[in-house]
Amino acid sequence: MLTFDIINQSLESRARTGRITTAHGVIETPIFMPVGTLGTVKAVSVEELKACQAQIILGNTYHLYLRPGCEVMAHMGGLHPFMNWDRPILTDSGGFQFFSLAKLAKFKDEGVSFQSHIDGSRHLFTPERAVEIQSILGSDIMMSLDWCMGYPATRKEAMGALEKTTQWAERGRNFWIEQGRVNNLFGIVQGGMFADLRSISARQLADLDFPGYAIGGLSVGEPTELMYEMADHTVPQLPLEKPKYVMGVGTPENLVELAGMGVDMFDCVMPSRNARNGQLFTSTGTMNISNAAFRLDESPLDAECSCYTCQNYSRAYLRHLYKSRELLAYRLNTIHNLHYYLDLMHQMRNAINQGRFMAFKQEFYRKRER
Amino acid sequence: MLTFDIINQSLESRARTGRITTAHGVIETPIFMPVGTLGTVKAVSVEELKACQAQIILGNTYHLYLRPGCEVMAHMGGLHPFMNWDRPILTDSGGFQFFSLAKLAKFKDEGVSFQSHIDGSRHLFTPERAVEIQSILGSDIMMSLDWCMGYPATRKEAMGALEKTTQWAERGRNFWIEQGRVNNLFGIVQGGMFADLRSISARQLADLDFPGYAIGGLSVGEPTELMYEMADHTVPQLPLEKPKYVMGVGTPENLVELAGMGVDMFDCVMPSRNARNGQLFTSTGTMNISNAAFRLDESPLDAECSCYTCQNYSRAYLRHLYKSRELLAYRLNTIHNLHYYLDLMHQMRNAINQGRFMAFKQEFYRKRER
Ligand SMILES: [Zn+2]
Ligand SMILES: [Zn+2]
Repeated sequence: MLTFDIINQSLESRARTGRITTAHGVIETPIFMPVGTLGTVKAVSVEELKACQAQIILGNTYHLYLRPGCEVMAHMGGLHPFMNWDRPILTDSGGFQFFSLAKLAKFKDEGVSFQSHIDGSRHLFTPERAVEIQSILGSDIMMSLDWCMGYPATRKEAMGALEKTTQWAERGRNFWIEQGRVNNLFGIVQGGMFADLRSISARQLADLDFPGYAIGGLSVGEPTELMYEMADHTVPQLPLEKPKYVMGVGTPENLVELAGMGVDMFDCVMPSRNARNGQLFTSTGTMNISNAAFRLDESPLDAECSCYTCQNYSRAYLRHLYKSRELLAYRLNTIHNLHYYLDLMHQMRNAINQGRFMAFKQEFYRKRER
Repeated sequence: MLTFDIINQSLESRARTGRITTAHGVIETPIFMPVGTLGTVKAVSVEELKACQAQIILGNTYHLYLRPGCEVMAHMGGLHPFMNWDRPILTDSGGFQFFSLAKLAKFKDEGVSFQSHIDGSRHLFTPERAVEIQSILGSDIMMSLDWCMGYPATRKEAMGALEKTTQWAERGRNFWIEQGRVNNLFGIVQGGMFADLRSISARQLADLDFPGYAIGGLSVGEPTELMYEMADHTVPQLPLEKPKYVMGVGTPENLVELAGMGVDMFDCVMPSRNARNGQLFTSTGTMNISNAAFRLDESPLDAECSCYTCQNYSRAYLRHLYKSRELLAYRLNTIHNLHYYLDLMHQMRNAINQGRFMAFKQEFYRKRER
């Protein structure tokens, strides 16, 4: 089981730094986890991830279950040796993909039945099976199967999803305990955009005493302010001494705000997906590399960035590669964006440790809005 | 100007090892040059090229002229700083692309007028302009503009193309000399599949005293035996003490055969293009990574290979990446194939230096045909 030590608690906000210790090493929090859907963070190597200071990556259970499948994953000894990554891995439960990607998903008491988006084959995920599959993947941090919803949703729908999510969390947890508490299992708070339902969900999950907690069902289409409101409301309802993870969020600004509310862990496809679309995050804002203004621009993407891309290549070259759809474009852009996100977390940890989180936040906004 | 020193001459064949010294460093021959069409060898970084022991790469003048274009290339100081490659670069003249890729190319006495395959814009390349553009690219070894033909071609067509190629070679050479012999310019032998025309072309070009010579118009659809026959006939017609380059060839077997005829330089898109199509060259033959036989295969692509891919990844993982169309698949496959080609050249150089080229060749075929 993991241990979580809180290193420093900001006196100006709920922001804190911490240290999660897993079987595959230590994670300094707050941390951003690059998303490696299919056993690779798209466009980059594990060495490049390490050079960007990635401490933990995320794998998608739904995707890996369908391809390469459990037989391959079990035979190869799990995701770590398969993809040559020796640091921690967190896997989601598939719940969000059943909701967003799978065909004809049916949410029943038993679990979720769905059709593969690849070949249409039918499958059933139960809370127990979700834990079993994540165990085969060798995930350091597994997520409970949850019942996802879109936005907007009625109070009744949110209540139903919440109840199902708690029941499934308990079933998954019982299965995990029976199996000997291999790795770690997190519970997921649901409750839609209803603060009182979020409180109920958090309390029910806290009673189940998970090694850590995720807040799900955010960034599903709601206004940013509402997302912040829900997170700000939910975090204090969860045990202070456990790591907290907001799933699938978000922009650099989102990370700064949520870390200030006491969130310890983040994941999002945004830095890698946007990189592949030519959109790059920098200390002074967000830029599109295909812009004609960069045609003869010898400067790096971000003068403040120490990433491989910024140390070796000009905007003019990156624009040329991107416009030529060269594979190297996706790699160089992804390295920069992941480095930006991970360095932002590093800067936040330093600021929290040095008792200047609010000053950091002001400076961050001042520069980003330039 | 380059210098070329012959290090060892095989006593069993015309194979030889040599050393070409350029402004950007030394090239040990016989050498294979990975193709970097648009200022990047597709899917790999310059560090990965160096780890594969690439000593020189090729850039395509036609492609770079159209995109990013001469204004960008001149502003950025040429291809070396633009793409962050500090070793030698050879550029072709565009002749082959006018023939194979451009729209409505018209070969006239003056030069070639053509339409861009990207936006349909009209352009004219003269022999002088071809040298000028390659000078802007900062190419260490520039190629004369040549008049290309398909296969089969009549004797009359071949004679016409040969005459034009010689005239253009002389014009390009005069321009190059007027400009102060910046970098190096090679002449290109044409003559189709007619041995006597190849002799005429070689003699005419030899009289122009280029720093090196290419044999063009091979591997354009003719039977392999005929390609060998033409190369075998042509190589001895060219000055012994100059480097010789067969353009756009070929398979590992082709390289071994042609090196045995005294060819010093090769380029081909085959290792990189085939890698992106999942076809991998190994010491025991060629394999398709998507084959179901590799689904649970924990072994590396090639047990004898010391490349990054083979040292770190299984066939099962590479198959999964390739079937999932993950960008990392193209990179890992390309690294392996380029390493295979470059290591093959390295083995050939060792064998020639040790006086055992024929034994090497026998062993190479014995294993490849397994
Ligand atoms: Zn950067
Ligand atoms: Zn290899």
